[in-house]
Amino acid sequence: MSSEENLSKLGITLPPAPPGVGAYIPWTRMGNWVLTSGQLPWVDGKMAYPGRLGAEFDVAQGYEAARICGLNALAQLREAAGTLDQIAKIIRLEGYVHTAPGFRGHPEVLNGASELLNEVFGDAGKHARVALGINEMPLDAAVQIVVWAELQPGGVSF
Amino acid sequence: MSSEENLSKLGITLPPAPPGVGAYIPWTRMGNWVLTSGQLPWVDGKMAYPGRLGAEFDVAQGYEAARICGLNALAQLREAAGTLDQIAKIIRLEGYVHTAPGFRGHPEVLNGASELLNEVFGDAGKHARVALGINEMPLDAAVQIVVWAELQPGGVSF
Amino acid sequence: MSSEENLSKLGITLPPAPPGVGAYIPWTRMGNWVLTSGQLPWVDGKMAYPGRLGAEFDVAQGYEAARICGLNALAQLREAAGTLDQIAKIIRLEGYVHTAPGFRGHPEVLNGASELLNEVFGDAGKHARVALGINEMPLDAAVQIVVWAELQPGGVSF
Repeated sequence: MSSEENLSKLGITLPPAPPGVGAYIPWTRMGNWVLTSGQLPWVDGKMAYPGRLGAEFDVAQGYEAARICGLNALAQLREAAGTLDQIAKIIRLEGYVHTAPGFRGHPEVLNGASELLNEVFGDAGKHARVALGINEMPLDAAVQIVVWAELQPGGVSF
Repeated sequence: MSSEENLSKLGITLPPAPPGVGAYIPWTRMGNWVLTSGQLPWVDGKMAYPGRLGAEFDVAQGYEAARICGLNALAQLREAAGTLDQIAKIIRLEGYVHTAPGFRGHPEVLNGASELLNEVFGDAGKHARVALGINEMPLDAAVQIVVWAELQPGGVSF
Repeated sequence: MSSEENLSKLGITLPPAPPGVGAYIPWTRMGNWVLTSGQLPWVDGKMAYPGRLGAEFDVAQGYEAARICGLNALAQLREAAGTLDQIAKIIRLEGYVHTAPGFRGHPEVLNGASELLNEVFGDAGKHARVALGINEMPLDAAVQIVVWAELQPGGVSF
């Protein structure tokens, strides 16, 4: 099954790819490699989860925030590649969790994005990950992620 | 116009590329891809902006600190490529802001480096970005950045 | 001398490559490029250094924690490449130090991993580095690192 078909089967409709919030672009390419800029939990242009894990939000809410970041990242990848079916493999997830002092549940929170990638791409969704706690996050976002993907050989070129 | 000519026209003279502050090298290459190590706001071997955004420094000062990091990154890229004219494209900026509790102006601060790259390279300067707040920064630096660039095909080899 | 012979000569026996702690894989590849997920100071399945630099641990202990992360990263690279002799070059070290307020000794701590890479790979171990302080680290680990390496041309393929 193709990744786009898989997405439909999962009942997921991707949002429009969010613009950046500064003098940069939301994704870039180098050869067959695509990477997103930092993706925040935007929903319809609103910051859906403003606050910190271990204070304003619990792990279940953080998981949901990470999943929303993941949906926005998928929207960027589709924008970059034309269709998710041009994605050969997810390479890496950078996961940044907005943390109040003492919070240690980063892995559970970031699984919200990782499991989305695994659901949509199957084996090709398996990725390396780095997980960090950030005490002061841009725009007060609860989570920020970056996704790297490899395009199909002979995929889109610019 | 070439990037080096553009630099002259902007009246920018790059500083010498700063050495690292540990058992690492200030830039590296893999194929056509160059990346810098973390660049700090060094001016003539002195840490020009020691302190935190939202405490010792305001957004305008942070912007200037980020621009200085950007100049040091350009110096590294020139060192790596021989001349900035060998740079085909800026790929990514990693932007780390030294933050006091409650600071949320990361995007404005990091634009100091992003806008420099856009000025010097024009369309080829458009890059992906990740922006994080760091409460304890090495050497108390107000900003740290990493820049990734793609070399011209058939560019320098080692 | 080969890297594996060098490792023996240094009296180093690598631990088994630790599994991830979430819905991700501990290393990945893209073409000739291998990168690990975040490596923590696990020893025999136990978090060997739980706590912060500048509070529970001093610089010498942090150096040792970073070296252990480095050993785990080498175990991942061997797993990815079959043997360390397939590694052509270390590209980058991402170094994350779990910091209490006011700690600034990141470079010395991360040299624990950097110097290991330099010892094992010699000139091919020279790498770019980024060093950040993290106030809330997953699993309370004192240090987390990520290592990027380039494989020999004509090296392993999948």
